[in-house]
Amino acid sequence: MTNSITEFSLIDRFFKRQTANQAITQGIGDDCALLKIPQGFELAITTDTMAEKVHFFADCDPFDLGYKLLAVNLSDLASMGAKPLAVTLALTLPNINENWLQAFADGFFALAERYSVDLIGGDTTSGPLTLTVTALGLVPTGQALRRSTAKSGDIICVTGHLGDAGLGLKINQGYDCKQPDAALKRFNQPDPQVEAGQALIGIANACIDISDGLVGDLGHILQKSQVGASLNWDALPLSTEVLTYIEDTGDWVMPLTAGDDYELCFTVSPDKVQNLAIPHTKIGVIESLLGLRLNKSGNIQPLEVKSFEHFS
Amino acid sequence: MTNSITEFSLIDRFFKRQTANQAITQGIGDDCALLKIPQGFELAITTDTMAEKVHFFADCDPFDLGYKLLAVNLSDLASMGAKPLAVTLALTLPNINENWLQAFADGFFALAERYSVDLIGGDTTSGPLTLTVTALGLVPTGQALRRSTAKSGDIICVTGHLGDAGLGLKINQGYDCKQPDAALKRFNQPDPQVEAGQALIGIANACIDISDGLVGDLGHILQKSQVGASLNWDALPLSTEVLTYIEDTGDWVMPLTAGDDYELCFTVSPDKVQNLAIPHTKIGVIESLLGLRLNKSGNIQPLEVKSFEHFS
Repeated sequence: MTNSITEFSLIDRFFKRQTANQAITQGIGDDCALLKIPQGFELAITTDTMAEKVHFFADCDPFDLGYKLLAVNLSDLASMGAKPLAVTLALTLPNINENWLQAFADGFFALAERYSVDLIGGDTTSGPLTLTVTALGLVPTGQALRRSTAKSGDIICVTGHLGDAGLGLKINQGYDCKQPDAALKRFNQPDPQVEAGQALIGIANACIDISDGLVGDLGHILQKSQVGASLNWDALPLSTEVLTYIEDTGDWVMPLTAGDDYELCFTVSPDKVQNLAIPHTKIGVIESLLGLRLNKSGNIQPLEVKSFEHFS
Repeated sequence: MTNSITEFSLIDRFFKRQTANQAITQGIGDDCALLKIPQGFELAITTDTMAEKVHFFADCDPFDLGYKLLAVNLSDLASMGAKPLAVTLALTLPNINENWLQAFADGFFALAERYSVDLIGGDTTSGPLTLTVTALGLVPTGQALRRSTAKSGDIICVTGHLGDAGLGLKINQGYDCKQPDAALKRFNQPDPQVEAGQALIGIANACIDISDGLVGDLGHILQKSQVGASLNWDALPLSTEVLTYIEDTGDWVMPLTAGDDYELCFTVSPDKVQNLAIPHTKIGVIESLLGLRLNKSGNIQPLEVKSFEHFS
C-alpha cells in the first residue's frame, strides 16, 4: 500500500479502530493485511466503486456517502449468503477536508461496527473524488448463494419494499412527497440484508441483491440460470408513499426498474418456502420458458430486461 | 458488483480469461468471487490506486499502465513473502476507448499470466481515470515478512539496483541519458520481486518493498521495529546510467529517495546471511540507536526519513 507520512497520519486519525475479528492477524500498518480463514469456510470477495457525478454529487452528505459505500459492498456479500469480515478502502480525494473526512468515517464505521467489519487496509491518493471498497466475507464451503442455480418452478421472493430508494431519488429531483423521510433514508443509507442473506443458506436456490432494479437484477438470475419468469405486479411489496407516487405520476414501472434498494431477490423451491425464517414477499415464479413476463391485473406483457448503464 | 449490460460485455470482451488457480471456486460473473484458502496458509491482502495526473499522465501508454498497476500490488504481496493468487480491478474510465482498453488489458495480463494471477472481479464506472487493484496472496501461516520485526545487528539488504526508475522519471522530464532504455523500462514496467519475497520466508527478519524510495521505506521498518540504522552510500547497487546521472548532476540523493523501483529492502541476522539464495546487496546495518545515518566515503551524516507525499 502506498506510504506517505501524511497518508499515515490521515489513516491513523480517521480510519483506525480496534480490530473486531480474531481472523485478522495483521490489520492496517504493513504492506498487506493478513487473514486466517477458519476451516469449513470459503472467502467471498466483492469490489464496488462510487464516483462523484455518477453515484453522488459533490454536495452529498459525507456521512451518507461513507455509509452507502460500505452498504453496497455488504449487500453483495449478503446476496451470496456471506458473513461480512473485513474491507479495504481506496480513497481518491481532491483535497484534505478534515470535517468531511470525519463525517465520512463516522458514516462508514456506523455501519462497519454494526456488523463487526474490520477496515484492514487501503490507499489514499489525491485526485477526483472516487471511492472503492473491496469487501471480504465468510460463507460455509460450497453453500454460497448463486445467480446461476434458479430452477423452473421456484417461487421468486424479495425482502422489504421495492422502489423506496427510487422514490428517494425522485424526491431529490423535485417530486413533492408528503412523507419523504423513509424514502430519503433508504436512498441515502440503504440497509444491506446481511442477516437475511445468511438465513437463506440451504434454503434459497438462487439469490441476487437489487442494486440496479428488480427487472435488471432478476434478469441476471434468469440469464445465468437459463430460465424465464413471470412476475405478478399486484404482489409487489410497495410502501404507501410509492403507491401515492404511482397514483400521482402514472409511473408504475419505477419500482420494477429503480436501483439502490439493496433488498434481496431470491428463488426458493415450493417445498422449502415454509422454511423461510425471514420476512419476504412472493412476487412471481421461475419458468422454463425463457424471457420475463409481467402479470399486471390479469394483463400479461413481456418485460425487457435492462438496468442502469454507466456508459450509455 | 455493479451490473450494467454494457459493463458485462466490456468485462467479457477485455478482462475474462480462463481461471488459473483451483482455489478460485467462483470467478467473475456473480455478486462475489469465492476462494478456498488451503490449510496452513494465511491470506495476504493489499490495495493500491493509480490516478491520472498523480501517478501517470493522460498520454501514458495503456499497456504500461495495466502492467504497472498490477506490478505495484504484486510488489506489496512480495514484500510480505506471499505468493500472488488473485486480484479484483476497479476501473473508473472517462469513456470507452476500445483500443485503449485492449492495450491496458494486454499489459495487465502480460504480468498476471506470468504469475498465474486470476482476475476474479471488479467494477467499472464512468468518471475521471482512476484504477484500483486489490491483490490477494497466500503466505504460510505465521511466517509473513513484516516491517516491525527488524533487530539490532541485522544486515540491511536490497534486491536489484536502486534509482533506475527514478532515472526513468528524470529522462521523461528531459534529462539526456545516453542509454535510456533500461531506466525507462524500469519506470514503465517495474518487475515485482515475487520470487525473492517468497525465498526470504524463514530467513529475513523484516521486509518492505521500495515504492516510495529507500530512505522512506526503510524508515517504515525502523519506525515499526523501534530501531535505527546506518547505510553505506558506497555500497548502494547503482547502474552505470545512474552513476553517470550523479556525475552529470551532482544529485547523489536520487537513488536514496526516488520511488517506483519496487525492489525489496530486507534485514537478515548475520548468522542467516549465508542462507540467502537470491541476488542481493548488503547496504547497511540495523542499530539500536534510533534514527538513520549515512556513511558516504567515511563522512557520516544523519538522514531525514521522508518519502513522496500525495497531499503535500
